[in-house]
Amino acid sequence: MALRRVLGLGAALGRRGCCSKRPLPPDFVEALRAVVGDPNVSTAMAVREQHGHDESMHTGAAPSPSCAPPDAVVWPQAVGQVQELAALCYRCRVPMVPFGTGTGLEGGVNAVQGGVCFDLSRMDAITELSLEDFSVAVEPGVTRKALNGHLRGTGLWFPVDPGADASLCGMAATGASGTNAVRYGTMRPNVLNLRVVLPDGRLLHTAGPGRQARKRAAGYDLTSLFVGSEGTLGFLTQATLRLHPLPEATAVTMATFPSVRAAVACTVQVLQAAVPVARIEFLDEVMAGACSRFSGLELPEAATLLLELHGSRHGLAEQRQQAEEIVRLNGGSGLAWAEEPEERGRLWAMRHSAWYAALALRPGCQGYSTDVCVPISRLPDVVVETKRDLQDSGLTGPMVGHVGDGNFHCLLIFDCQDPAESRRVHAFTQRLGRRALAAGGTCTGEHGVGLGKRALLLEELGQEGMDTLRRIKAALDPHNLMNPGKVL
Amino acid sequence: MALRRVLGLGAALGRRGCCSKRPLPPDFVEALRAVVGDPNVSTAMAVREQHGHDESMHTGAAPSPSCAPPDAVVWPQAVGQVQELAALCYRCRVPMVPFGTGTGLEGGVNAVQGGVCFDLSRMDAITELSLEDFSVAVEPGVTRKALNGHLRGTGLWFPVDPGADASLCGMAATGASGTNAVRYGTMRPNVLNLRVVLPDGRLLHTAGPGRQARKRAAGYDLTSLFVGSEGTLGFLTQATLRLHPLPEATAVTMATFPSVRAAVACTVQVLQAAVPVARIEFLDEVMAGACSRFSGLELPEAATLLLELHGSRHGLAEQRQQAEEIVRLNGGSGLAWAEEPEERGRLWAMRHSAWYAALALRPGCQGYSTDVCVPISRLPDVVVETKRDLQDSGLTGPMVGHVGDGNFHCLLIFDCQDPAESRRVHAFTQRLGRRALAAGGTCTGEHGVGLGKRALLLEELGQEGMDTLRRIKAALDPHNLMNPGKVL
Repeated sequence: MALRRVLGLGAALGRRGCCSKRPLPPDFVEALRAVVGDPNVSTAMAVREQHGHDESMHTGAAPSPSCAPPDAVVWPQAVGQVQELAALCYRCRVPMVPFGTGTGLEGGVNAVQGGVCFDLSRMDAITELSLEDFSVAVEPGVTRKALNGHLRGTGLWFPVDPGADASLCGMAATGASGTNAVRYGTMRPNVLNLRVVLPDGRLLHTAGPGRQARKRAAGYDLTSLFVGSEGTLGFLTQATLRLHPLPEATAVTMATFPSVRAAVACTVQVLQAAVPVARIEFLDEVMAGACSRFSGLELPEAATLLLELHGSRHGLAEQRQQAEEIVRLNGGSGLAWAEEPEERGRLWAMRHSAWYAALALRPGCQGYSTDVCVPISRLPDVVVETKRDLQDSGLTGPMVGHVGDGNFHCLLIFDCQDPAESRRVHAFTQRLGRRALAAGGTCTGEHGVGLGKRALLLEELGQEGMDTLRRIKAALDPHNLMNPGKVL
Repeated sequence: MALRRVLGLGAALGRRGCCSKRPLPPDFVEALRAVVGDPNVSTAMAVREQHGHDESMHTGAAPSPSCAPPDAVVWPQAVGQVQELAALCYRCRVPMVPFGTGTGLEGGVNAVQGGVCFDLSRMDAITELSLEDFSVAVEPGVTRKALNGHLRGTGLWFPVDPGADASLCGMAATGASGTNAVRYGTMRPNVLNLRVVLPDGRLLHTAGPGRQARKRAAGYDLTSLFVGSEGTLGFLTQATLRLHPLPEATAVTMATFPSVRAAVACTVQVLQAAVPVARIEFLDEVMAGACSRFSGLELPEAATLLLELHGSRHGLAEQRQQAEEIVRLNGGSGLAWAEEPEERGRLWAMRHSAWYAALALRPGCQGYSTDVCVPISRLPDVVVETKRDLQDSGLTGPMVGHVGDGNFHCLLIFDCQDPAESRRVHAFTQRLGRRALAAGGTCTGEHGVGLGKRALLLEELGQEGMDTLRRIKAALDPHNLMNPGKVL
């Protein structure tokens, strides 16, 4: 995504100021250089600014954006260096912010209290690939596309796909998921072990050093605790991942429906019929129209489902038949199935262009993506109410969703130079979050809490839940040095 | 399982004494009665002894078994009572032990420091069943068979099956799994939310109150933290579970192989071919022979796989064909496929009788089940070495395993009145645990740590891992009142 930091919008989107920034101690930068060498430390403003934001509009800035960049950026080359750097920061009580590809959407990397940004992109080893165990270990510089490139020809792949070519360790830190989660799960069940550098520099293997058993019942599940911890408990410096066999055959189709309700009913029935659907993506009629114009595919402006099936050649035929029948039962009309990579690519390119197609609805404006997830049974009501709210608020917000999981995004396209519209966007996102909570859902299905959703998180978890999170944070990061100001 | 507490064996199986037991404060039992009413509190020795052990041989007793029973047993009828009772225990610093069905295998319910046993079996509501969302909420008195009975006719089921008809909240507390985990996962991915009574009586909903979204990225994953916490962090008083569609058709077969290695190679290839196998269970030749004699099925005494496939009628035919081909490629010879419930039941009854078949190998002796899990690629070596070790140790220990997950059990059958043999069993279990660790595995795939595996857990996680567990325990249970002496 090309979307970049838009100054001053953080406040409008619910971020609270947390700039208790202190200058680095004297000679501290020299001490960093002593660990990683001169060329691997930078205090240049351009570099710091580049590391002070992700792809969202959160600046971490209140009232000015000046505290979002870190005070220094370091590029450790090995886990031992991460440990030494962390121990140094810990001794001097300097905040630490992990940085992967910077493709987050909730301001997770913004250095709201300054400190040192650890850019881990140069640690990019892929090791311990085991074709028999379906496992591999990756360092933070390895993106999901790089891993799948590495796996080419092995018959295995890593299916979690949040859209962006994110760092796999970053995806673990965010608890990412995306289009394939309905079949293959989110990051959590696909991480077997994490090598974590703790705030004081000690090394923790969440499932024990060198372990990669497919399941375990040995003590608290530290792996799941660090997945989704958004850099607030430690640095994820290696993730051991669970791989999956590549499907023998893949087929994609697109179906349009008379209503949102019909599209969702179709989804529920597909799941109930145990059709092992790999992706089932929803576009509302505004999004379908925008994608149609943007991609030149001439789609009907109607509630749309994109379905992908994985299976054996033989099994796929049956899955297709089942899916078609359920689509028809719900008043849907489908296109032909695309089986060849090129055709399938064209359909997914259309879906993946949703962000740009949405931006093209109002040239010159910015975008912000909401991320609620609700029980599927509540999805039609929540979507219909949300569409009414968009209309009443005078906002542009086409919808896309991982409908098999009940997770959908409004891509809000607005003029951030217009304070009144920015306020309406903020008020809308809060209402949407609360609507999802009232429906038994969550304010974030896959983007994480970061800066923007801390207030909603309290409403979601309640006082006891927040107190429990805070106790865990205080137990593992007693001086609040790891990515301070995020999540909690 | 009929196996009951065998006095004095705990020490031989690696349990450490932890009997810092203090008498209950004066009038404390009266205070308990004031909360739940007279008939719901007992201090009768028979009742306390019944609640002082699970189905394993761990007594929690060193040097005598007398400290395993709790000082009192209470039967709360509602979550509010659990809260009041916990608050009372918390104020008086009295240890608390949650109790479900008592079907654990690692001494998890033994009251090694005395205190109050909370028997939660009378809280047995099944609520919030949603057929569209594939979810349901169960209280601790609901067992997996009771839930699946309740679901009859809905087209949905809860697949996690550890063998025993355990409480579902207890299965969550243990991080249980069993035969279906290779397809449907362990308890962890199948729990959406937990209603927890914290040690001080406060109520925590791990995913927020009333929430049942299929996925979330909102703060640390408290649900996964409490799954597998073995009662050491709080009482699981309700679990919201993820249900699955019942398969349209099911087929089971059994195949015998020339060697362990061939059976495991077959398993890996079945998984690599993406055959969505629902169960794939291994029996070594000793176990197959014992089961053969016990069940009268006349099986060959050879390394054996039991395979179960779930799918549509049509899809099943293809899965069968694929599986048969892979079995043949690995030198396996198979029986015919059983598709009718009765035939399938007969095969699984044979597998489920493994424990009794093993006991029948040495009438009058006791059994203890090990529980290591290793990466599948290491399974043949670990199994072969373990068989040699059994022979060298002069021990009887037929093997069964959830081989698709790399998890196998030696069912050690020994005379616990013979101190020398008991010592050999203890030494063997330690060596087996260490062998699994050396192979990148875990000392417990599904039974939990309880009393018996605390020493191995340290070796598995290392000092940093244990320190992290201890910090979390201290943060959430600062006075060490929840099931003290377990896991840590």
